[in-house]
Amino acid sequence: MGILGGGTVGAALVGLLAERRTEIAARCGIELVPVAVAVRSPDRPRPGVPADLLTGDAAAVVARPDTDIVVELIGGIDPARELLLAAMAGGKPVVTANKEVLAGHGAELFAAARAAGVDLLFEAAVGGAIPLVRALRESLAGESVRRIMGIVNGTTNYILSRMTTAGSGYHDALAEAQALGYAEADPRADVEGHDAAAKAAIMAGIVFGAEVTTADVHCEGISTLSPNDIAFARRLGHVIKLLAIAERIDGDGGAGSAGGGGAAVAVRVHPAMVPDDHPLAAVRDSFNAVFVEGDAAGELMLYGRGAGGRPTASAVLGDLIDAAVNLASGAAAGPPPVAPARIHPIGELRTAYYLALEVIDRPGVLAAVAGVFGRHGVSIRSMEQEGLGDQARIIFITHVACESDMRATLDDLRHLEAVRQVGSVLRVIADE
Amino acid sequence: MGILGGGTVGAALVGLLAERRTEIAARCGIELVPVAVAVRSPDRPRPGVPADLLTGDAAAVVARPDTDIVVELIGGIDPARELLLAAMAGGKPVVTANKEVLAGHGAELFAAARAAGVDLLFEAAVGGAIPLVRALRESLAGESVRRIMGIVNGTTNYILSRMTTAGSGYHDALAEAQALGYAEADPRADVEGHDAAAKAAIMAGIVFGAEVTTADVHCEGISTLSPNDIAFARRLGHVIKLLAIAERIDGDGGAGSAGGGGAAVAVRVHPAMVPDDHPLAAVRDSFNAVFVEGDAAGELMLYGRGAGGRPTASAVLGDLIDAAVNLASGAAAGPPPVAPARIHPIGELRTAYYLALEVIDRPGVLAAVAGVFGRHGVSIRSMEQEGLGDQARIIFITHVACESDMRATLDDLRHLEAVRQVGSVLRVIADE
Repeated sequence: MGILGGGTVGAALVGLLAERRTEIAARCGIELVPVAVAVRSPDRPRPGVPADLLTGDAAAVVARPDTDIVVELIGGIDPARELLLAAMAGGKPVVTANKEVLAGHGAELFAAARAAGVDLLFEAAVGGAIPLVRALRESLAGESVRRIMGIVNGTTNYILSRMTTAGSGYHDALAEAQALGYAEADPRADVEGHDAAAKAAIMAGIVFGAEVTTADVHCEGISTLSPNDIAFARRLGHVIKLLAIAERIDGDGGAGSAGGGGAAVAVRVHPAMVPDDHPLAAVRDSFNAVFVEGDAAGELMLYGRGAGGRPTASAVLGDLIDAAVNLASGAAAGPPPVAPARIHPIGELRTAYYLALEVIDRPGVLAAVAGVFGRHGVSIRSMEQEGLGDQARIIFITHVACESDMRATLDDLRHLEAVRQVGSVLRVIADE
Repeated sequence: MGILGGGTVGAALVGLLAERRTEIAARCGIELVPVAVAVRSPDRPRPGVPADLLTGDAAAVVARPDTDIVVELIGGIDPARELLLAAMAGGKPVVTANKEVLAGHGAELFAAARAAGVDLLFEAAVGGAIPLVRALRESLAGESVRRIMGIVNGTTNYILSRMTTAGSGYHDALAEAQALGYAEADPRADVEGHDAAAKAAIMAGIVFGAEVTTADVHCEGISTLSPNDIAFARRLGHVIKLLAIAERIDGDGGAGSAGGGGAAVAVRVHPAMVPDDHPLAAVRDSFNAVFVEGDAAGELMLYGRGAGGRPTASAVLGDLIDAAVNLASGAAAGPPPVAPARIHPIGELRTAYYLALEVIDRPGVLAAVAGVFGRHGVSIRSMEQEGLGDQARIIFITHVACESDMRATLDDLRHLEAVRQVGSVLRVIADE
């Protein structure tokens, strides 16, 4: 096989292939030997990768007659997309860990795999070592999934865990994550939720058999969360997690494919309040987990390492074995077709909300604020007020309300003279 | 396809097939239509199963030319084993949820599947709806798994959860589980660990590519646990769970297949003390979960409903789709061969222990007891003593020790004149 990309995952994969070669040959009856590793600077030595495997010409690796399977670990859209398409056009199965290209050009890539009758496998693109993609594609192939909620970004989960357990502020927790190598120097892709949004699009696509791209995903990050939000959540028996959520919204036609007539799919990434006794609440530090609610299967959760060289390489290796076994038996038929998705607008989302409001502490303010909620039909479930000198902080938890009504409420609140600041707005996960 | 068995799971499967038929045809390009459901009393009406599908002749269902896939949901060894063998001998792929036949005759059944080149799929046999078997067989095919620990019996997990949260005694919690339908009138298969032992054998077989049968599994149940044990565990920051554990014990040859020269496999079921912050500690009520530790993948956990008609039928349906797609593409090649297992004797297990001892409260007793531990090389990590009139209860936690040394210690303690009773002995899960 040919490997494109010699970074952390590529080097870990070369190492794993060497370690596990005899065992895999004995167990699976296949030999997995890398013929080349394409990197940008082939002259720079890479620990763990034999120098004679390194080359600068990725297209040549794809084209080599002795490259039977192409493993793409470059990441990003270009040139990964062209290389994957070229490999499949040449009849070669591909294994990729590249969430961006799948979330941006999944439909094109799947169509190419189908046309060529080759495998396009991507277990490592979401949830690292967690055997999530295969579970969703195969084990749950017959299941009608209602909702999937994932903690799919380890950086933000680490930051939120530190804010929760150590009481750190956002910037301190981020600095700590950077020092540990969990966060990049430029952390925006993680903390603004873009990484999670790509993964949400991929998961929604698999689960609902629909074409969902990153652009379809409503996305909010964690950079504006305050220690106050974390503390209030704790007091209310919740933790704050950045969730990637894909949900089936049944229309008049009832349950069914999100691509079909009846149902739409809502896909979003945002921080949310998760009850302490929910399995996702116990997912700490840089771990990832995906919680699935199915009509027949009930509640499922898959948990593990979402990133890191060896965990990710382990998932790639599982795919590689699958592709090699299928290649030997002539079994691969390409992935099933996906239908265009009907995306449910975020404004029609129905959920409960947490809202922190800073107001001037004087008589009549609460009545004015409550009046705004009432005018937009947003019903308050609980309220807590805390004095701050001549100001007060009010925390509201609403009953389930429509997002557009909530947004209208927030707009009006911002114009209320007594309101100093509208703080964090968090959606609350509940058994709705 | 033909279905053998029309109990809870069989009826749920017939229902799911009807509900999901259009969707599955659209998504997977296959039609799944049951041609017959074999039951012991075909004249007894079964809710959800059309009367014209019912028949009393299971062998005839297997033999029918229009039965392309056989789904076995009878359970037990006979006649399930013969029917599965007959189906595969006739070139028909089989899907089964039957842990007993797999744990007792797995090697024979896998060999038959290999010889016939047909699928033998059994996702529902362990962990119900949890997509565990496929993850272990395929996603982790290239992974070197060190240890797998599972809560794979919902009845005992429910009982232990009630003893922990409500402080119930064992018999009250069992009665409650029976009233809720979580436990059978004769609960022995669950509470003595036999059900978990069959699942442990199946998991060990997959993960280590080795022939492991129920007879190879050291098995202890939960019926002798006392509310005191639960309370002490809680005070020490632990919960008690019935765990099914399969572990690779590397020999001189280092890491490798448990069937090969270097490594052996240790498989056991027993109650264990699990630290509160371990992901398995949060698996409550009748939920199941399996925790996997891999050399490259790191820690993984899969969580969900381990039993129930619809969750189990959902797992069977996933397998059915897989088998049907493979049948249509001519892909199935049968499972890979398994090697004979080298079973690590329980006496050589190395772990930490919890031990509750009731002794006469008089000077010198602790010295005598500590002397017994010392003579057998079992080192005490912590000790806690509590007066009970003229008696005292002493709780010991040991450092990691060898099981045979611990057993010798227990034997000697039982013969010590000041020891009234040797209570529960629990193994302690730790990052050893």
